[in-house]
Amino acid sequence: MMQIENFKTVVERYQYIFFDAYGVLKNNKGLVEGIEQTFLHLEEQQKEYFIVTNDASRSPMQLAESYHRLGLKIVDHERIISSGMLAKEYLDLKVNDGIVAYLGTENSAHYIESSGLHTLPVREVNESNIDQVNALVLLDDEGFDWFGDLNKTVNLLRKRTIPAIVANTDNTYPVNQKEVSIAIGGIATMIESIVGKRFIRFGKPDSQMFMFAYDLIRERNPVSKKDILMVGDTLHTDIIGGNKFGLDTVLVLTGNTQAKDAETRIHATGIVPTYICENAVVG
Amino acid sequence: MMQIENFKTVVERYQYIFFDAYGVLKNNKGLVEGIEQTFLHLEEQQKEYFIVTNDASRSPMQLAESYHRLGLKIVDHERIISSGMLAKEYLDLKVNDGIVAYLGTENSAHYIESSGLHTLPVREVNESNIDQVNALVLLDDEGFDWFGDLNKTVNLLRKRTIPAIVANTDNTYPVNQKEVSIAIGGIATMIESIVGKRFIRFGKPDSQMFMFAYDLIRERNPVSKKDILMVGDTLHTDIIGGNKFGLDTVLVLTGNTQAKDAETRIHATGIVPTYICENAVVG
Amino acid sequence: MMQIENFKTVVERYQYIFFDAYGVLKNNKGLVEGIEQTFLHLEEQQKEYFIVTNDASRSPMQLAESYHRLGLKIVDHERIISSGMLAKEYLDLKVNDGIVAYLGTENSAHYIESSGLHTLPVREVNESNIDQVNALVLLDDEGFDWFGDLNKTVNLLRKRTIPAIVANTDNTYPVNQKEVSIAIGGIATMIESIVGKRFIRFGKPDSQMFMFAYDLIRERNPVSKKDILMVGDTLHTDIIGGNKFGLDTVLVLTGNTQAKDAETRIHATGIVPTYICENAVVG
Amino acid sequence: MMQIENFKTVVERYQYIFFDAYGVLKNNKGLVEGIEQTFLHLEEQQKEYFIVTNDASRSPMQLAESYHRLGLKIVDHERIISSGMLAKEYLDLKVNDGIVAYLGTENSAHYIESSGLHTLPVREVNESNIDQVNALVLLDDEGFDWFGDLNKTVNLLRKRTIPAIVANTDNTYPVNQKEVSIAIGGIATMIESIVGKRFIRFGKPDSQMFMFAYDLIRERNPVSKKDILMVGDTLHTDIIGGNKFGLDTVLVLTGNTQAKDAETRIHATGIVPTYICENAVVG
Repeated sequence: MMQIENFKTVVERYQYIFFDAYGVLKNNKGLVEGIEQTFLHLEEQQKEYFIVTNDASRSPMQLAESYHRLGLKIVDHERIISSGMLAKEYLDLKVNDGIVAYLGTENSAHYIESSGLHTLPVREVNESNIDQVNALVLLDDEGFDWFGDLNKTVNLLRKRTIPAIVANTDNTYPVNQKEVSIAIGGIATMIESIVGKRFIRFGKPDSQMFMFAYDLIRERNPVSKKDILMVGDTLHTDIIGGNKFGLDTVLVLTGNTQAKDAETRIHATGIVPTYICENAVVG
Repeated sequence: MMQIENFKTVVERYQYIFFDAYGVLKNNKGLVEGIEQTFLHLEEQQKEYFIVTNDASRSPMQLAESYHRLGLKIVDHERIISSGMLAKEYLDLKVNDGIVAYLGTENSAHYIESSGLHTLPVREVNESNIDQVNALVLLDDEGFDWFGDLNKTVNLLRKRTIPAIVANTDNTYPVNQKEVSIAIGGIATMIESIVGKRFIRFGKPDSQMFMFAYDLIRERNPVSKKDILMVGDTLHTDIIGGNKFGLDTVLVLTGNTQAKDAETRIHATGIVPTYICENAVVG
Repeated sequence: MMQIENFKTVVERYQYIFFDAYGVLKNNKGLVEGIEQTFLHLEEQQKEYFIVTNDASRSPMQLAESYHRLGLKIVDHERIISSGMLAKEYLDLKVNDGIVAYLGTENSAHYIESSGLHTLPVREVNESNIDQVNALVLLDDEGFDWFGDLNKTVNLLRKRTIPAIVANTDNTYPVNQKEVSIAIGGIATMIESIVGKRFIRFGKPDSQMFMFAYDLIRERNPVSKKDILMVGDTLHTDIIGGNKFGLDTVLVLTGNTQAKDAETRIHATGIVPTYICENAVVG
Repeated sequence: MMQIENFKTVVERYQYIFFDAYGVLKNNKGLVEGIEQTFLHLEEQQKEYFIVTNDASRSPMQLAESYHRLGLKIVDHERIISSGMLAKEYLDLKVNDGIVAYLGTENSAHYIESSGLHTLPVREVNESNIDQVNALVLLDDEGFDWFGDLNKTVNLLRKRTIPAIVANTDNTYPVNQKEVSIAIGGIATMIESIVGKRFIRFGKPDSQMFMFAYDLIRERNPVSKKDILMVGDTLHTDIIGGNKFGLDTVLVLTGNTQAKDAETRIHATGIVPTYICENAVVG
């Protein structure tokens, strides 16, 4: 009943292609087979592309390097829009001085640092510096002690009326074919409900992510949203986000949504992609 | 402890001012006293302004007329950004043909009509036309029979896998100093949870509203978000939305948030405005 | 993989059987075929049974009559435990005087009336009597004007700090094979979230329903929970409620849970019945 | 406006008194001053009492010892009803063999062990024993490694369709006057939402807790719910739970609800105690 379309044919109709990363370009086994072809084809056809990814644990530069290591040499860091970039922009615009406390690795904190701000892991917040803490950012599920530092985070938010930012909307991420890990987005939801405060969340399905890429295009060329295609594997981030921003969308079956239950899920959620394709490979 | 600042002094620091409408410019008794002065002052100072309002029940033209009738003659419809405009844009971009079923008044439906689309009140959906219904839009809490048409809406969404759009994020709106009415946003939440589907919501705090106004400015002049001030009375729409978009924000005390509990609510929600002012009047 | 067991064989292991009504004994086409046999068999075997139903729209007497009309003559009203009985008990114990405002039919209100209390439809609450309103009860989705009376209900709960009771945990009920109606439980959820107050809910999965039946048995005979079997068609009311109360449970496939997706739903929800049977018919 | 009543006068009207523990009998500084007097008075007046507490981290025996150490020698373990007792009863009735995996200290697991069951900390679940795991119980926030064991718990629940039980409804507990710790109830909510499964929760406000104490009384004497008073410091557990079970309730101001915001909170939540008293001390 559900019609599976050829990705190459779909792509022909658009001038700009936005890709989700995990589940579209790669998965827990490495690159999706043949995905290099897609990017060669796009360059040949002079179509422009962006990778729009909910990831705040690394800089776009480091994300690009991770693709290079997997064998996808063609992807430049300037083609990557991450939710971490929005968190960084927020801090640049809205937090002018003091300390930004964070949960995550040192590396994740390095990227968000900016001129006037000092980053500090939550575990190092104490009576002597807590009054200078002007924001909290949740970056990664690793790099801290969950028991000690999550309890510290709850008490920090009870004591200080500061913005709390999380640049990841996922509850879990896959670690292998059978198992998942709790993502920093899932932890954020727990902390948010415990302290009763509203976090500022960046990342798909929020339109700010799509706007970031859209603006990069518009800076150079006039463009209509009708010329942009969003390709993703997840209904409640990539597809509803793309739809809401006014883009046509492709659901691919190489990640979170499997062929056997795509139709059921689309009906159950009411989130309808413009097209469904096996994968994002131009075969 | 909480510092109340002078609105005129705050406004001096910005080139562009975004205003929420209800609770800032007017309330259930009419215009906020002296608000005309603010707009005269802005024009004198050659500052640009937009009214950014969660309202899908009327066109910007009709909204402007309602201000004129109240005595605020200066506001032109081109200065008004409504969530209904986003719903209309969505339909233009994403729904190409067929019927758009709606809940609301005939007037509210008139505005969202566009070339290829036919609008139809939910009560007129039946076996003969249901297969052509390609979207559902919730526009207003009036203009339909709640018992009959809400039940019809639930069954429409069970039978058809179509996008459902609501351009109002509020649960209620005030009708006089003591009483409220259930808004179409509150009804949407009920239907959404009953059918288990995800609605597409337009309106503050979503960044698409702010982007719409931001784009209108950028079309003519280069602008930094640092030059824009958002003025609102509601923490969980105006203030968190403005903050997240990267704007500085003013909480005014003439609407949803009263002086006596502003500080408590800011602490309880963690939503922190850049400034707090008594009102948006340049005295 | 999922093992379907014979209902008669399962029943042999228990002395007391609790049945859900809708989806087990009857559905939208009338009685489940052959269900009379089950009750004849139970009486023959001297096993005791109760019908435990989330229904506050009628008295047990009227519920029994509705079974008689369908042809199930054997069921006596003393065998019926309804969530309306708990609402009535609550009013008897906790609300001593004044007015109980209600949403529902006159008939539904008749049953909950008790010595010191006066019931009044929400539409008749006004300035002159609102101060005597000491409780609100949501009984049925019919018998009132949704637009007018739901808005009145919201304002009543904003003005008066009184308990609000709903004796129905369902969001919808089936009206025919293809369509559902919004139940008073679904309306209650909307009102609850709009006014931000906590309603008192009676009905499965809450243990008070099971306790009511359990107490009726214990009054006459000592009994262990191990001797009681709960039979239902709905995982999130009958099965989780029965399990939590410590009873063994049978999921039947004649109502809300269909054979083709029983296993998927059990895995997805983590709500595991002790047995699964095609139906509750002793063939 | 809010009337504060004398606890001694209130108590005179009832034959049986149920007390919450934390915030009523003790707090983070030790026993509530003078609380011993209350129990002497009750014994003198031949009134019966029970302590009804949401605690699954220790046995009633150990809970009683903790009161003795604080100086409240009079409280016998037979007077203590804990949510852990309900978890234990559930396992006795419903899980007949195999392994019960748990999060908590060894001590907390010791109490729930019963004849046919073997308890195992989540960290020791592995490929060789996972198929024998027939239930998961969340007992305490200490005694395990949060990062490793919470991730293991998520994957256990994805692989095994088993009941997950938590006997604590609180998100946090106070550790001193300024700080709180995340309770196992808060962790349970996170895991529940991540795996999308429904946990079985024991503890106030659920009526099974009150029923447990009620049954202990009824075994010896006939009793009406009108003769029982529930005393607690928390609206959304003690007070709504007591009310719903049909008991009269006292809100005391020595714990979660402070004098200055009692009235606001009662109005905001719609949870109305029968009485408000400064404390539970018979002075």
